[in-house]
Amino acid sequence: MEKKLLVFQTDFTYKEGAVCSMYGVVKSVDRSLDITDGTHEIPQFDTWSASYRLQQSMKFWPKGTVFVSVVDPGVGTQRKACVALTKNGYYIVTPDNGSLTHVYKSFGIEEVREIDETVNRLKGYDTEGVSIFHGRDLFSYCAAKLASGVISFEQVGPKYNVENIVLHDIQEASYGKDAVQGNLEINDPNFGNIWSNINTSKFKEAGFKPGETVHVIISNKEETLFEQKVLFDMSFGNTQKGSPILYNNELMNLALAVNQGSFTEKYNIGYGPDVQIIIRKVK
Amino acid sequence: MEKKLLVFQTDFTYKEGAVCSMYGVVKSVDRSLDITDGTHEIPQFDTWSASYRLQQSMKFWPKGTVFVSVVDPGVGTQRKACVALTKNGYYIVTPDNGSLTHVYKSFGIEEVREIDETVNRLKGYDTEGVSIFHGRDLFSYCAAKLASGVISFEQVGPKYNVENIVLHDIQEASYGKDAVQGNLEINDPNFGNIWSNINTSKFKEAGFKPGETVHVIISNKEETLFEQKVLFDMSFGNTQKGSPILYNNELMNLALAVNQGSFTEKYNIGYGPDVQIIIRKVK
Amino acid sequence: MEKKLLVFQTDFTYKEGAVCSMYGVVKSVDRSLDITDGTHEIPQFDTWSASYRLQQSMKFWPKGTVFVSVVDPGVGTQRKACVALTKNGYYIVTPDNGSLTHVYKSFGIEEVREIDETVNRLKGYDTEGVSIFHGRDLFSYCAAKLASGVISFEQVGPKYNVENIVLHDIQEASYGKDAVQGNLEINDPNFGNIWSNINTSKFKEAGFKPGETVHVIISNKEETLFEQKVLFDMSFGNTQKGSPILYNNELMNLALAVNQGSFTEKYNIGYGPDVQIIIRKVK
Repeated sequence: MEKKLLVFQTDFTYKEGAVCSMYGVVKSVDRSLDITDGTHEIPQFDTWSASYRLQQSMKFWPKGTVFVSVVDPGVGTQRKACVALTKNGYYIVTPDNGSLTHVYKSFGIEEVREIDETVNRLKGYDTEGVSIFHGRDLFSYCAAKLASGVISFEQVGPKYNVENIVLHDIQEASYGKDAVQGNLEINDPNFGNIWSNINTSKFKEAGFKPGETVHVIISNKEETLFEQKVLFDMSFGNTQKGSPILYNNELMNLALAVNQGSFTEKYNIGYGPDVQIIIRKVK
Repeated sequence: MEKKLLVFQTDFTYKEGAVCSMYGVVKSVDRSLDITDGTHEIPQFDTWSASYRLQQSMKFWPKGTVFVSVVDPGVGTQRKACVALTKNGYYIVTPDNGSLTHVYKSFGIEEVREIDETVNRLKGYDTEGVSIFHGRDLFSYCAAKLASGVISFEQVGPKYNVENIVLHDIQEASYGKDAVQGNLEINDPNFGNIWSNINTSKFKEAGFKPGETVHVIISNKEETLFEQKVLFDMSFGNTQKGSPILYNNELMNLALAVNQGSFTEKYNIGYGPDVQIIIRKVK
Repeated sequence: MEKKLLVFQTDFTYKEGAVCSMYGVVKSVDRSLDITDGTHEIPQFDTWSASYRLQQSMKFWPKGTVFVSVVDPGVGTQRKACVALTKNGYYIVTPDNGSLTHVYKSFGIEEVREIDETVNRLKGYDTEGVSIFHGRDLFSYCAAKLASGVISFEQVGPKYNVENIVLHDIQEASYGKDAVQGNLEINDPNFGNIWSNINTSKFKEAGFKPGETVHVIISNKEETLFEQKVLFDMSFGNTQKGSPILYNNELMNLALAVNQGSFTEKYNIGYGPDVQIIIRKVK
């Protein structure tokens, strides 16, 4: 059987030895396993971002790839440790703490199993008494066994109801003729862009055209944070340096950028379930 | 012969091409070698941290793994360049500058050899005149040859006396019935926890119980930095957000954290040979 | 046919899912491909640094290695996407935006081809409408096909004239008997050193000797930024902590450092085409 690829994401950073210990556990299970760093810079304890990042990259990987996501503020408490199989054929090894939200909504979860600690937890390294590093002792170890073929998905542990998976509240965009409304879900922390959940294709179907200037309002609950006419285009490359632009991002969603600048810094705007964006035709 | 895995740690960061050059040298020796980033964010010139990080992750890797540690403030001077074989079966390629301290103490060094530059230094890349990048020209090259089987451990260079290995001063914890005393050795720079050298099992044997509130005093030489009653527990997941806790860390040692916060920032406490912790029963 | 190694450099950082998506595309083309992180911390939009970093590490890799460089401020505009074959036998997949400058000058470009988007762009992932992530949709996909042997170099797309490659202005150092003059090209962002384009061997041929104190003047256009007598030596390990030194860097060029400190911070000096260094004999 072909071994599965492993992709890791955590909020551990790469500053100390935690990631290295996890990868050692994987290689001790099967030294031929192929490990890729997804990212180790998820904001601390931010299961929402963990959820988003899984969705962002997953579909570009070969079917069967095993994603290990360890953003785990509740480690050592009663939250479930699980492996989910998505409807499009990927495995996710993660605490069941909201990290599955976006994948659940976008791709669907076929089946989810609680990791059986009695058989799928690391033994023999004097870590049996450790409660705070399931990333190493449980998730990496179980993921390596699954990727290597030492255990089948069924041998992860008992199945539970997909409907019991812990989910964050998540909003749907709405597409009207005069106004399209959505949520600013996440940022690009490097370039300072903000990404919405508005699908660009549907936005165009609603009657908006690349090259058109549109009216953009961003608000957090009742407070208006940004209200401007902004160019909508498919790339930011052709706009002036320093100008804001509504563009089609890498996931075919609308996003806001400042060409060669930072939208988030220039306009001091964040993201999250409460940050709403409305886009209207300019009259 | 099965090739050995390679794990690298440096204080180079990943901001420029140094790590990439080292890995190129490895792949030029043998392109099938498997390289893992341990960390490239050891604090600059901090051979104490280098030493700690080696110990932290080593035992989770398969026996025979070759660790390359390049924190090398004395590069180009008379400090030895060596390969050590630990008693538990790992190789460490490193300047002999204190980086072997914790591994020496925890696992023991079976044998140490000085790298023979006449045969185990990179040639033919116009770097023969370079004195300041042994990470690339000496350590990576020699480690790749060793991992690949091009040279045996004996062919690294001449053996020298293990007792001549350069060591940092290191303290032992002491376990009394009413007070346990140790050293705050290192931090978790990401989550802001501080780790002691007090073994949790021995601490419990001395009569302290999870769930018990204990009296913690941290001092630097004569100065008291922290004195509080703190909950001792096996995880921080069940405490209140923002509360300090004395918990069992990933290496079965006592550590201090603030649940979902930073102990080091909240209490402005560092680590190092002079930072002492005393834990007493609450009367 | 032996598959080619892949080395990636970008200005994306590792904070979110962009790098992970690129690597997924590679592994979906051929899961046996070997990927190494060059660096993902090139300063944003800095094609000069991208160019320098390629040159810095390239020659240490096996011939045939495929470098993917994505610093691409003009993504979605008319700049060419290309694959260059260097005279010393490496492939570079990159926007043709100045990123090839140093390699062109140091090693020479044998042949360059524009990537044919009709055949070498990712399809079937709903990214056909995305204009802003050629790193994933074009460069990674095309590089993976080339590295895997799915396409030959000729099948990348049409050849164009090497003389039409976009280049940054780049200066040559000059070596006189009493004065050697050059450009401060780049920094080491970690240790705070600055690297010149003055070759140390030629500098010594011009009559300067290790251990000699020399007169160093750094200027930006007309303005003098630094003027001091500085020790020239082959390593910084033997100088006093905190002292400036002119040393031979990892590429056999002269560079400025402060031993165990940061030259760039201590003297507030940057790099770039306008920053000139003159080194004279002390009379």
